[in-house]
Amino acid sequence: MFSPEHDAAIHGEAHQLRSEYVIRIDGVVAARPKETENPNLPTGMIEINVTKLTILNASLPLPFQLDEQVGENTRLQYRYLDLRRPQMQRNIMFRHRVMQSMRRHLDESGFIEVETPMLTRSTPEGARDYLVPSRVNPGQFYALPQSPQLFKQLLMVSGYDRYFQITRCFRDEDLRADRQPEFTQVDLEMSFVEPDDVMNLTEGVVARAFSDALGIEIPHPIPRITYAEAMDKYGLDAPDVRIPLELTDLTEIMKGSSFKVFNQAANLTGRGNEHGLVKALKIPGGASLTRKQIDEFTEFVGIYGAKGLAYIKINGDWSEEKWQSPIVKFLSDDEKRAIAEATGAQTGDIVFFGADKASVVNEALGRLRVKIGKELGIISDTPFAFVWVTDFPLLDWDNEARRNVAVHHPFTAPNPEDIQHLDQADGDSVEHPLEKVRSLAYDLVLNGIEVGGGSIRIHSPELQKKMLGLLDIDDEEAEAKFGFLLSALNYGAPPHGGLALGLDRLVTLMLGLDSIREVIAFPKTQKATCVLTEAPSTVDLPQLRELHIRTTAKPKTAE
Amino acid sequence: MFSPEHDAAIHGEAHQLRSEYVIRIDGVVAARPKETENPNLPTGMIEINVTKLTILNASLPLPFQLDEQVGENTRLQYRYLDLRRPQMQRNIMFRHRVMQSMRRHLDESGFIEVETPMLTRSTPEGARDYLVPSRVNPGQFYALPQSPQLFKQLLMVSGYDRYFQITRCFRDEDLRADRQPEFTQVDLEMSFVEPDDVMNLTEGVVARAFSDALGIEIPHPIPRITYAEAMDKYGLDAPDVRIPLELTDLTEIMKGSSFKVFNQAANLTGRGNEHGLVKALKIPGGASLTRKQIDEFTEFVGIYGAKGLAYIKINGDWSEEKWQSPIVKFLSDDEKRAIAEATGAQTGDIVFFGADKASVVNEALGRLRVKIGKELGIISDTPFAFVWVTDFPLLDWDNEARRNVAVHHPFTAPNPEDIQHLDQADGDSVEHPLEKVRSLAYDLVLNGIEVGGGSIRIHSPELQKKMLGLLDIDDEEAEAKFGFLLSALNYGAPPHGGLALGLDRLVTLMLGLDSIREVIAFPKTQKATCVLTEAPSTVDLPQLRELHIRTTAKPKTAE
Repeated sequence: MFSPEHDAAIHGEAHQLRSEYVIRIDGVVAARPKETENPNLPTGMIEINVTKLTILNASLPLPFQLDEQVGENTRLQYRYLDLRRPQMQRNIMFRHRVMQSMRRHLDESGFIEVETPMLTRSTPEGARDYLVPSRVNPGQFYALPQSPQLFKQLLMVSGYDRYFQITRCFRDEDLRADRQPEFTQVDLEMSFVEPDDVMNLTEGVVARAFSDALGIEIPHPIPRITYAEAMDKYGLDAPDVRIPLELTDLTEIMKGSSFKVFNQAANLTGRGNEHGLVKALKIPGGASLTRKQIDEFTEFVGIYGAKGLAYIKINGDWSEEKWQSPIVKFLSDDEKRAIAEATGAQTGDIVFFGADKASVVNEALGRLRVKIGKELGIISDTPFAFVWVTDFPLLDWDNEARRNVAVHHPFTAPNPEDIQHLDQADGDSVEHPLEKVRSLAYDLVLNGIEVGGGSIRIHSPELQKKMLGLLDIDDEEAEAKFGFLLSALNYGAPPHGGLALGLDRLVTLMLGLDSIREVIAFPKTQKATCVLTEAPSTVDLPQLRELHIRTTAKPKTAE
Repeated sequence: MFSPEHDAAIHGEAHQLRSEYVIRIDGVVAARPKETENPNLPTGMIEINVTKLTILNASLPLPFQLDEQVGENTRLQYRYLDLRRPQMQRNIMFRHRVMQSMRRHLDESGFIEVETPMLTRSTPEGARDYLVPSRVNPGQFYALPQSPQLFKQLLMVSGYDRYFQITRCFRDEDLRADRQPEFTQVDLEMSFVEPDDVMNLTEGVVARAFSDALGIEIPHPIPRITYAEAMDKYGLDAPDVRIPLELTDLTEIMKGSSFKVFNQAANLTGRGNEHGLVKALKIPGGASLTRKQIDEFTEFVGIYGAKGLAYIKINGDWSEEKWQSPIVKFLSDDEKRAIAEATGAQTGDIVFFGADKASVVNEALGRLRVKIGKELGIISDTPFAFVWVTDFPLLDWDNEARRNVAVHHPFTAPNPEDIQHLDQADGDSVEHPLEKVRSLAYDLVLNGIEVGGGSIRIHSPELQKKMLGLLDIDDEEAEAKFGFLLSALNYGAPPHGGLALGLDRLVTLMLGLDSIREVIAFPKTQKATCVLTEAPSTVDLPQLRELHIRTTAKPKTAE
C-alpha cells in the first residue's frame, strides 16, 4: 500500500498508476490492520508498505475490461488481453497439463516421439489440402499434412514398434462451428497389435490425462458398442450414451402397411444408406409436449433431410383409440400393437417416427434424440460418458460417384472374418456383399462427440492392392499417390495399427466448454482468418514471382 | 531353431523363410547346447525349439543390405529400410529422449507449453517465407512461421510468465550443407528476466538433456565471452573453444608500415565491417608445413574473400634474418619485433596474416584457425565445449542497401548502458555511435556451432518505435507487418526475453554426427525435395483454380 504517512513521495508517485501498469515495488510485507482484512482475496490478509516504486511499463486504457463480456471478434482481435482473463489462463494451463500427462504416459509405455514432415505430399484423408508452392522446384507444390498417417505406417515398417507425436494437422475444409484449419492431434501407432491393444493403450492415455489434469478417475474399461448397434439404437456413429433414449426399428413391421409413407420407406431398396428405414423414437412423458414444441422438432429434423415428423401421443391404450396422432388412422391394429410392443410406449409417452432413406432416418431421429434428451433433461448426470464404437464398415457406397469409398481411409484393414466377401462379385446384386465387410476401425466418443479414431492397417501388399482396386484407384494413381507405402509393404511390414486423438476437442470437453477456440491460444475465425495478425494477407508480387505463381483473384490483387 | 528332429513339418516350412520376413513363432525356450553358445549375440545363450511357425509378412529381397554402405540418395529413397539400421534406431530414439528430458525440465521449472499458429503471417526473421495460398480469401496468403517470435512475445503480454514449445519452423532459404526447409526449435520465453536468467535456465535444460540422454554432466556454468572478444580472438561469433589458437590484432602496428598491403588495410575506414584489419594467426610448430599445405590454406581462405595468405615461418630470431617469408623483406625491424612480441611466435612456429576489410580478415583467419586446429590436432579432447557469446551489436550496417539492419531481430533490446547512443546523430560521421550499441542478445555455441540464440526483447512501445525508425521501417510498414505487437506493447507489457535452441543441430552434435539428416526421420535433400514421397509434386489444375493461383512455371506445368 501507498500511504502518505509511510512515504509521502511514493504516495505521490503512486497517483500515476493506472490499471494494467507493470510495476516493481520494494517494500515490507505486513499483516493488514484487522478492519481492512479481506478473506475473499488471495492477498486479503496482508499488505506491503512500499519503500520504492518503479514503473516498468505503462498501459493505455484497455479496450475492454478483463471481467467484461465482449464479442468473440473483439476477443480475438485483442487476444493478448483476452488471454489475461483467469478463465483463459486456466484453459491454456490445463491444456499444457493434459499434453504433459499424455506424453509422459506414452513415454513410460515405451512409445518414441518421432517428428514427421510438415512440407510433404498430399495425404489420402480425402479432405482438401493446404498447398505450399516450391521456389526451388518450379510448378511443384508441397501439401501440409492432414495427418501423419503414411509416415507413421512407414515407421512401423522401420521397426519403431511404438510411435507417438502430438502434432499439427491441416485441412482446408469449409469451417463448421467447431473446426479449425489447423488442429492438434495426439497421434500413435503400434506394431503387432489387435484393436484391443490400441484401445487399451488409448484408455490409459486418456485416463491418465483425466486423473493428472482434472483429478477425475474415469470408469475403466470404457464400454464398447458396434457401429451396427450404434446406428440401430442411436442413429449416429458417435452416440451420446448419457441419454437413455433409443430408436426402435419398425421397418419389417411396416413392409405391408397400408400407410403409404411407411410402406414405401420400408420397401425402398438401394445400396449403402440408400435403402429405406422406418424407425421410432419414444420419449417417456412426451405426451405433454406442446404443438409448438413438436413444430420446432419437425423443423429441426428438416435440417437433416426429413420431410416431416410423424408422431403419436400415447394418451392411453391404442385399442381404446386413445392414441392422438395425425397418422394413427392409417395404421392397422396389428401395426399399432406392434408399435406398442416394439417401443414399449406407455400412457404419457410420445413416439416420433422417421420413414425415409436410412441415411435420413438415422441422422434425423439420432439428432432429435440428443436434442430432446438435453432439452427435456433426459440425460444422466455423469459428466464424462465415453464409449468405443467398433466394427465400422470398411466401405461406403458413394451414390453420386457410383463407387465405393473408404469409411476410415484406404489403409484400414478389413475384419478377417469378412475378408471372403471382398472377392465376391458385387455388381448390382441386391446382396451387396461388400457392404457387409466390417473393418478393424474404432472411434472413441465422449458425450456424443468423436474425440479419436483409428484402425488396424493393412500390412499385406496383396490385400492393400485389392483394397485400392475396390476403391477404383488404379495402379497408376496408387503408384503416384502412395507408391512409397505400397513399396514399403513389400519389405517385411509388421502387422500394425494405431489411433489419433483430437486434442483440441478433448480438452474442450474436459473443461466443459463449447468451442475449441477457448482452448487454442491463437485460433482462427470461421473464415479461416486471424483477426489479430490479419493473416492471411496479400503479398508482394516479387514474392509470388519467386514461387512461380500468379494470383488469379480479381478484387484484391497483390500490389 | 527349426530342427528336423524336433518337428520335420515345421523344419520344412522354415525353408521358405528369407531375410526380413516377419514371423510369429510359438516354441520352447531352452539353453543352447554348450558347443553352440555364442556370447557375442544378445540371444547367444538360448534357442527356441519352434512348435508353430506363422509367416506374418514376406519380404522381397532388400535393395541393399542393412549393414551395407550406400549413397545418401538411396538411403533417403528407401528411408523405411534405412531407419531399420541400428545406428538410425539409436539416433531417433536418442532424439526422443532429448525431447522428453527437455520438456520435463521445462515443465518442472514452471514453463507452460503453448502451441502457436502454423498458418500465420510473415514473421520478421528476414529469411524467405513459405507461403500458403488461401482458398477462402482469394489473393491472400498465409506464411509458415520462421519462428514463433511474435506469438511468444504476445504470450508474455498475456501474463504467461514462462512459455515453451518444441516446434517446427520453416525457412525457404538456399540450402547449405546442413540446413533443412523445416527444422525443430526448442522455443522459450520468460517475463521479468535479465540475460543471466535466460542463460541459466537454458544451461539447466541442456545439462539435463546431456545427463538424461547421454549420461554426461556438462561443466556448469558455461563460460561466456563477449561478441567483441570472440571476434577479436577467434574471428567468428561462434568460436570453437576446443582449439587453443588465437588471432592477434596488428592493425595499429601496421598503420605506418611501408608494406603496402598491410598499410592500406590498416588505414581502411568504413562503416560496419567495412573498415580494415591486419591480423595474425600463429600456429605453434607450423614452420614444418609444406608448400603444398600452405597453398591449400591459401586456396581455403580465398573462399572467404581473402586475396592471399601471407605467412612467416619462424625458423629462428628475426634479427638474425631467420624468418622465412615472401613478405619479410617489406617489414621494418620495428614491425618484425612487434609481430614477434604480439604473437609470441617461437622458433618452429608459423604466422599467417590477413589484411583486408574486417569482415574478410575475421572470417578467413577465423575459419583457417578451425581448419588448422582440426587438421593438425591442435584441439582439446573435451567432446563438448560450450560457450555463450554475449553483447552482440544491436545493429549492423548493410553497405549495399546503405542502411542499418538488426543483428538479431528488430525486437531485441539494446543494452541500457548504450541506449544514449541511439539518439546520437549517426550520419556519415566516422564515429558511428550506433555501431557501438550492444544488444542484450546471446548465442549458445557448441564446438564452434551455434546451437541456440536469444535476447531480452524491447517492452517499451516508445523504444520499439525508435528501433524500427533506426531500421528505416516506416510507420506504415511497421503497422502492416507487426502492428499487433506494437499495439500489445501499449497495454502493460512486462519486461521479457527468451531463446530458441536448434534441436536438430544440438542432437546431431550430441551424437557426434556430421549431418542433421542423420537425426531427422524423414529429411529433405539439398534441393528441398523428399525422394521418398516425391514431394513437392505437380498438382491438378482444379486444385490451383480453387486456390486462385496459376503456376507460371514453363517446363513442368501441372496437368
